[in-house]
Amino acid sequence: MKIESIQNKKIKERAKLHTKKERDKTNLFIIEGFHLIQEALYAHQLEELFILESIENPFDFPCFSCTQSVINKLSNQISNAKMIGVCRKKEFKTTKFKKILFLDDVQDPGNVGTIVRSAYSFGMDAIFASEKCADVYNLKTIQSTQGALFHLPYFVTNLKKEISFFQEKGIPIYATALHQQAEYLQDIIIPDSFGIVVGNEGQGIHKDIIDMCDSCIKIEMNAFESLNVAIAASICMYTFQYKK
Amino acid sequence: MKIESIQNKKIKERAKLHTKKERDKTNLFIIEGFHLIQEALYAHQLEELFILESIENPFDFPCFSCTQSVINKLSNQISNAKMIGVCRKKEFKTTKFKKILFLDDVQDPGNVGTIVRSAYSFGMDAIFASEKCADVYNLKTIQSTQGALFHLPYFVTNLKKEISFFQEKGIPIYATALHQQAEYLQDIIIPDSFGIVVGNEGQGIHKDIIDMCDSCIKIEMNAFESLNVAIAASICMYTFQYKK
Repeated sequence: MKIESIQNKKIKERAKLHTKKERDKTNLFIIEGFHLIQEALYAHQLEELFILESIENPFDFPCFSCTQSVINKLSNQISNAKMIGVCRKKEFKTTKFKKILFLDDVQDPGNVGTIVRSAYSFGMDAIFASEKCADVYNLKTIQSTQGALFHLPYFVTNLKKEISFFQEKGIPIYATALHQQAEYLQDIIIPDSFGIVVGNEGQGIHKDIIDMCDSCIKIEMNAFESLNVAIAASICMYTFQYKK
Repeated sequence: MKIESIQNKKIKERAKLHTKKERDKTNLFIIEGFHLIQEALYAHQLEELFILESIENPFDFPCFSCTQSVINKLSNQISNAKMIGVCRKKEFKTTKFKKILFLDDVQDPGNVGTIVRSAYSFGMDAIFASEKCADVYNLKTIQSTQGALFHLPYFVTNLKKEISFFQEKGIPIYATALHQQAEYLQDIIIPDSFGIVVGNEGQGIHKDIIDMCDSCIKIEMNAFESLNVAIAASICMYTFQYKK
């Protein structure tokens, strides 16, 4: 089917997905580019496909053939995009996770996306994010995940409730914090199941969440004591998973 | 001294520092905000200070008192900036480094900045970057460094020449690559002196540079085999420095 006008009803509806409000209401989100669309297709999350009229559809999935102005209306990019996908958010019912990352108000979309990418690469089972975190279905975030979001359970939720839930199951929860009492990462005796909490770029983790965690860990540093939150989260996940 | 017009000669000159060409020509660069200006002052790299007329100068350094439109002309931000510094690039004469990071065409300014921040926190002695890397004196990069750039020697240079130079001094150089022959990071016996090379976001390290390195290392991963380059660089530097 062809779509030539940006006044087309479907296009006007889908363009609203650039707002979090519309994504929350419809449970849909937009992705761009070959790689992400391919990942969405493999993960059975692709709902609609919009392809520039001059390009052959490279996917085994029906598409709307669109003019450049229609594609641009759906795209977030400055330069001309060529393919846009609309995906449905996945619902995850299980909570049988053993390796969990908690994000307490991580604000930057790029940081959230990079953390999701690392978490999946490093074999984490799930991510629980507080409501003030950057929306993971924001296009910038999804691009930073490189498609990892299609593989990893991700929940937006009340962190304290979830932390208690896993603690009751006997899973120890570690806060990353520069506390004096914090243990150095290399000194931690790493358990089979664990949760790691990372905090906001400026403020760190909320004090009441630090207080309920089983221990605090700090990353060894020579100088400066300053790390990007995606770096800190990734170093903790990597060390917990692979340290010999 | 007061500056009220964006036609002021100095302001017109300094606004050109938003281009790499002008930064290369003058060896000057622009920074914004209290934290970075403070770091530049401590590092004796601050040359000029421009402060919004309605704000008291918080630094022990003479300033030009400027209207908002003058400050905006020097700023890269969308919202109204309040203070701008002009800094001089530092020259480093010594090459007596024992822990060196090499950046082979790392393109994204945020990645370069985050890598500089981690490298300084993790006690690296210097960074050598290829000419195609994002300019470290770009405002976005400097902001991502959080000021680490004022502390860490950073050279833009021919990587192959530098790698050979350090190899001749007996320093082993490790390429981060997903080669089959690569050794896992946790299996490396870490020497006292070392160089680590990281590559471009899409292409990785150039093959001729991989070939001249002493070994290849790969980071352990469960799935996906995909990490952001700033994450990969930081995990390698952290593990080389602190692994017990």
